Amino acid sequence: MNAPATSSSATPAPRGPQSVPQPLRIAITTGEPAGVGPELTAMALAGAAAHWPDAEFVVLGDADLLAARAAAVNVDWAALCTIGAGSRVRVEHVPLAAPAQAGKLDAANGRYVLALLDRAIDGAMARTFDAIVTAPLQKSTINDAGVPFTGHTEYLAERTHTPRVVMMLAGTGARPLRVALATTHLPLKDVPAALTIDSLVETLRIIDHDLRRHFGVPQPRILVTGLNPHAGENGYLGREEIDTISPALKAAVAAGIDARGPYPADTLFQPRYLNEADCVLAMFHDQGLPVLKYATFGEGINVTLGLPIIRTSVDHGTALDLAGTGRADAGSLIAAVDAAVSMARFRHTRAS
Amino acid sequence: MNAPATSSSATPAPRGPQSVPQPLRIAITTGEPAGVGPELTAMALAGAAAHWPDAEFVVLGDADLLAARAAAVNVDWAALCTIGAGSRVRVEHVPLAAPAQAGKLDAANGRYVLALLDRAIDGAMARTFDAIVTAPLQKSTINDAGVPFTGHTEYLAERTHTPRVVMMLAGTGARPLRVALATTHLPLKDVPAALTIDSLVETLRIIDHDLRRHFGVPQPRILVTGLNPHAGENGYLGREEIDTISPALKAAVAAGIDARGPYPADTLFQPRYLNEADCVLAMFHDQGLPVLKYATFGEGINVTLGLPIIRTSVDHGTALDLAGTGRADAGSLIAAVDAAVSMARFRHTRAS
Repeated sequence: MNAPATSSSATPAPRGPQSVPQPLRIAITTGEPAGVGPELTAMALAGAAAHWPDAEFVVLGDADLLAARAAAVNVDWAALCTIGAGSRVRVEHVPLAAPAQAGKLDAANGRYVLALLDRAIDGAMARTFDAIVTAPLQKSTINDAGVPFTGHTEYLAERTHTPRVVMMLAGTGARPLRVALATTHLPLKDVPAALTIDSLVETLRIIDHDLRRHFGVPQPRILVTGLNPHAGENGYLGREEIDTISPALKAAVAAGIDARGPYPADTLFQPRYLNEADCVLAMFHDQGLPVLKYATFGEGINVTLGLPIIRTSVDHGTALDLAGTGRADAGSLIAAVDAAVSMARFRHTRAS
Repeated sequence: MNAPATSSSATPAPRGPQSVPQPLRIAITTGEPAGVGPELTAMALAGAAAHWPDAEFVVLGDADLLAARAAAVNVDWAALCTIGAGSRVRVEHVPLAAPAQAGKLDAANGRYVLALLDRAIDGAMARTFDAIVTAPLQKSTINDAGVPFTGHTEYLAERTHTPRVVMMLAGTGARPLRVALATTHLPLKDVPAALTIDSLVETLRIIDHDLRRHFGVPQPRILVTGLNPHAGENGYLGREEIDTISPALKAAVAAGIDARGPYPADTLFQPRYLNEADCVLAMFHDQGLPVLKYATFGEGINVTLGLPIIRTSVDHGTALDLAGTGRADAGSLIAAVDAAVSMARFRHTRAS
C-alpha cells in the first residue's frame, strides 16, 4: 500500500533525534601497501554516493599513498574526499613506516598494516564504526616484522576477545552460495586433530545465530561436509565422520539447529543440494573455497561470524603483480562494502 | 579441402582388410546392481547408433537385471540388443549371486560386481575391447563381501600390474577443465605422508604422456596446487610445498614437462589460470573434485591415466535413492562413453 499523498493529521509528528537517520559509518582498512588494496578502495568508493547514499566511509591508510594510488587508477581522490560535496569519504591518516612501492613487499611496513586493523577494531568496538571492511594484507609482511599472525580472521577474534569465530565466504545474489569453514589457516596435516565435537557444535551455533542476526535468514539450513573422501565411505576411508562429525550434528540438531550431513564434498556442491541450503560448512580451507571462488568469480566476499562487530572482506589476496596497474578488479571489494552496509543497515533496523 | 567427387584414377585402390574399418569395441560394466548403473547404461545406449555409429558395445551384467531396469526407464532393450538391426549393443551375461533390488545393497553381490570388472579388464588387456567404461559401484558392497577394495582406479592398477595410475576428472567441450589427483581414496590424515617427490614426478610424467597419447594435446601444460592453504604461504602454513612439491616441479620441468606451481588451490580455479592450462594437478580428492564437479554439472567424466588400456567412468556414485526411478541423469555416462570412443578412435588413427 502507498502512503496517501496528503496527511489527514493537522500537526506533523515530532522529529526526535532518532527520526533523523544517522549515516552508517563504515571503516575500510586499505591493507598491504604494496598490494592492490589502496587502489581498489579508491575504485570502489568512486561510486559510493550512488551505491551507498546512507553510508559514510572512513578510509584507514597513509594519506599520500592513497592519493598516489587513486591517481594511478584515475580516481579524483581529492574531490571524493571533500566532505559536503555530496561525498562521504574521509581519510584517517596512518603514516607508513617506509615508502611503499607497488609490488615490493617490505617488512618495515608490517606494523603499519596491523595499526590500520587495530584502529578499525577499536573504532568498531567503541561503536564509532558500524562495520569494518578489510582490503587484503600479506601475512608474510607481518610475520617478517616479527609478529606472529595467521590471518585477519584469527586476529579479529583475539583482539575482540572472542573465543571462536567462523570464516564464511559468500557470493552475492538472491540465494547466494555461502561456505563457512570449520578450520581455517592450518597446515593440512593439523586439520583432523583440530576438529572436535565441541568445536563443530559451537561453529554450527555461530553460523545459525549470525545468519539470523545479520542476514535475516529465519531458519538457516546448514549442510555439512565430511572430512574424508566420500565422507569416509562408512568408515572405510576414515573415521572422523563417525566419531566426530555425526555426533556434532546430532547435538546441534538437538539444540534446534537445522544442520544436515555429513555429505561427500564432491557431490554436495550441486544444485540439488545447494538449492535448499543457506550455508555449507566445509571442514577445511581447500575443501570449500576453490568451489566458492570458482562459483563467485571475483565477486565473492568474506564475512567473519561470531564477532561482536560486523566485518567483511574481499575473498582475494594482495595481487602484487597487478598493484599500481589499475588492472585489478574491484568487484570483490565493492561486494564486501555492499555486504557490510547491508548488515549494518539490518542491525540499525532491528535496533530502531 | 574436400575430396573430388570423382577420382581421376581409373582403377580403384585395392581394399585390404585394414581399409574396412572395424567397429570400435567398447565394454560397459554396469556396476552395483542396486544402483543406477544398469538403467543409465540402457538410457545411454538408446542413442548409440546415432551418437557412435563406428562403435559396438558389450554390456557386462546380469541379462535379466538389465532387461528389467531398461524396461523401468522405457528403453526397448530387446530391440536395442538385436544385432544387425542397425544396433551394435550386445549383452554378455554374468549372473547375479542374489536377486538385486533397486536401492537395497546386498553384500552377496559384491563378487558379481568384481566379476564384471575382471571380465572387462581381461578383454581390454587381450584387445578384445578397445576401451572400457565403468558405471558406478558401491565400495562397501565389495568390502562387506570380504574383499579389500578402495576404488575402481586402484583395482585397475593392480589387475593390469601398473605401478602407478592417475585419476583424472574432466568436463567436456573445446578446452575442457581437467583435474588430476596426486592422491585419491585415502583418509585425509594420510595424505601429507603419501606425497613424495618421486610420486609427484611420476604423476606429472603420466599426465603429460597420456594427454599427448590419448587426447592429442601436443605440449600439455599442467598447473599444480599446493597441499596447504595458500600453498603454505612461504612455509608459514606448512612445509610440503617447499620440501616436496617445488622440488618435484623442478625435476619435472628438467624432464621436459610443462608443469607450474604450486599455486593456492582457491585462486587457481579462475579463468585467468584455467584458460592456459590443459590439466590441473590437485594434491588430494576434496581439493580438486568439488570444483570440477560443480563446473561440469553432471557431465563430468573420470579417466584413469597410466594404464595399458583405455578406461573412462562416470564421475558420480550409485545414487541408491534414485535407482529404478528413471530420474537419474545419464549425462555423465554418455560423456564417459563419448570420451572412451574418442580415445579409442584416436588410438586407431595413430595405429593405422
